[in-house]
Amino acid sequence: MARRGWRQDELVTGVLAGDRRALARAISLVEDRAPAAEEIVRRVYPDTGRAASIGVTGPPGVGKSSLVSALVGHVRGLDRSVGVVSVDPSSPFTQGALLGDRIRLADHFLDPDVYIRSMGTRGHLGGLAEATLQTLLLVDASGKDVVFLETVGTGQSEVEVIGLVDVVLLVLMPGSGDSVQALKAGIMEIPDVIAVNKMDHPAAKTMLQEVRSIVALDPVRERRPPILLTEALRGEGVPELWGALEERRRGLAERGELEQRRRRNLSGEVEALAVARLRQLARRAMTEDPAVRELVEGVQRREVDPLAAVGAVVDAVTRGPAS
Amino acid sequence: MARRGWRQDELVTGVLAGDRRALARAISLVEDRAPAAEEIVRRVYPDTGRAASIGVTGPPGVGKSSLVSALVGHVRGLDRSVGVVSVDPSSPFTQGALLGDRIRLADHFLDPDVYIRSMGTRGHLGGLAEATLQTLLLVDASGKDVVFLETVGTGQSEVEVIGLVDVVLLVLMPGSGDSVQALKAGIMEIPDVIAVNKMDHPAAKTMLQEVRSIVALDPVRERRPPILLTEALRGEGVPELWGALEERRRGLAERGELEQRRRRNLSGEVEALAVARLRQLARRAMTEDPAVRELVEGVQRREVDPLAAVGAVVDAVTRGPAS
Repeated sequence: MARRGWRQDELVTGVLAGDRRALARAISLVEDRAPAAEEIVRRVYPDTGRAASIGVTGPPGVGKSSLVSALVGHVRGLDRSVGVVSVDPSSPFTQGALLGDRIRLADHFLDPDVYIRSMGTRGHLGGLAEATLQTLLLVDASGKDVVFLETVGTGQSEVEVIGLVDVVLLVLMPGSGDSVQALKAGIMEIPDVIAVNKMDHPAAKTMLQEVRSIVALDPVRERRPPILLTEALRGEGVPELWGALEERRRGLAERGELEQRRRRNLSGEVEALAVARLRQLARRAMTEDPAVRELVEGVQRREVDPLAAVGAVVDAVTRGPAS
Repeated sequence: MARRGWRQDELVTGVLAGDRRALARAISLVEDRAPAAEEIVRRVYPDTGRAASIGVTGPPGVGKSSLVSALVGHVRGLDRSVGVVSVDPSSPFTQGALLGDRIRLADHFLDPDVYIRSMGTRGHLGGLAEATLQTLLLVDASGKDVVFLETVGTGQSEVEVIGLVDVVLLVLMPGSGDSVQALKAGIMEIPDVIAVNKMDHPAAKTMLQEVRSIVALDPVRERRPPILLTEALRGEGVPELWGALEERRRGLAERGELEQRRRRNLSGEVEALAVARLRQLARRAMTEDPAVRELVEGVQRREVDPLAAVGAVVDAVTRGPAS
């Protein structure tokens, strides 16, 4: 116990000092759901909130990782330290595959002022959401000026993740017809900034126009996201994209909306994580509580209606932690 | 009370007899979250499970509603009764906009053996999921041979809805690049049958090939979904699509997988609905429990770490229904 206490102190001090080995170790504890992790995050939490956090989302295959990599290069050129957290299972960050044209990512790995971490997507979604929040807080506490959070998709299920950042960048490419339709139908939320990547593609300009016409429907001009053409692999449009992200964040801050958004995000995150834990309790009741299990089986035999079983599960969970 | 009891009996009898006014009234009670609704569903539940249910999903704009409409026409030609439940906020069923080339939907509305209902998407997601389940059960109990459930999107958030049907049809169109990438990356689950709609588009064949090559990666041949080209507005490919859906369902039934799937779906649905109710309790704790609210505010001031607040919310919910 004494030893663990010492290590914990060391980790807290190390994370706050920006020591990357301490940071890596603390995040591993988070991923292993070690009890010490929660305590470490608790202790560094007052030192969080200084990083500018940027969520990078969009369908798979549009070049999110390459764009993040190019943005990291640009931000490093401005002499600001950077963290990257990826929760995209299809991301090359996650796969550790830094081949071919992605060699620049490898450069970043060697830069002491860049910290890159991909979250294992093993385990349940709630666990992943908790681990992602804790990881972001640790990277933030380690003093990184800018933190990128790369996530796949833009569906409702990502709310927890997107609720963790100051500004959201949606990356599309020519051919992202489904996303354009989802934006148009109001099913996908309008982000802060949109990048149409792979700008060399003949359909890039058409996509730009299409997205622009959707965005223009918002009568409030300052809410309309800027839309930029980029070519991540060559770094084209990347300084402009970074400028747009910074300007967006500055505007939010000046209007007092950044603070509001952060407060809303934190409260949403608390709710999401609480629900994830409650889901675990519901699952446990359904498998381990004999009376509940019997009701669920009754539903399957069409003898007990589903809502009666739902009520029993909720009762079992709210009856308190008997087991 | 006597009056309500009488009406309830009448509704139960009416629904079971296939009376469409009784069915419509019962579903309205469900949508209004009237206490009587739960009791009606409970009473008709033993008479459910006879309909063949087909989920129709896919990004907005691909022509899901038109395809459902064409399938309804085809199935009616086979002299089978049909129900359609739509939970797609961008669907013309939902908007009641039956204009131009969609005039055929209007025909269906006049057919006594077709019942079409769109779910209002007002209110929280959990409420919508409960209402959708109850509506499907009511339509099933009313004796419809086939029930189509139209939903938008294919994200994780739709699991509750897709978990309600026997077979899932994914509709794509040329330009659905994001969905193809999501299938390829394993982020979107492979459905039972895939339709590439708008087959007249010059890129339709390319999309067909692309999807085919993804699907071929599954070594288990019988699991690979058939992929069909359709043109919903002209009804082209629709008989073949219906044949594929029927064959798929028959195969599942013959291998005993349909029963397994239905059991899994029902249990998943009980869990999803329980979690939706627990979410409401968590929200209430966060807004109404002074101690919890204080902790959440502490998180927002960076004084209390988020996981401590999460723990407090979970405790407040599992402490039981004090209020």
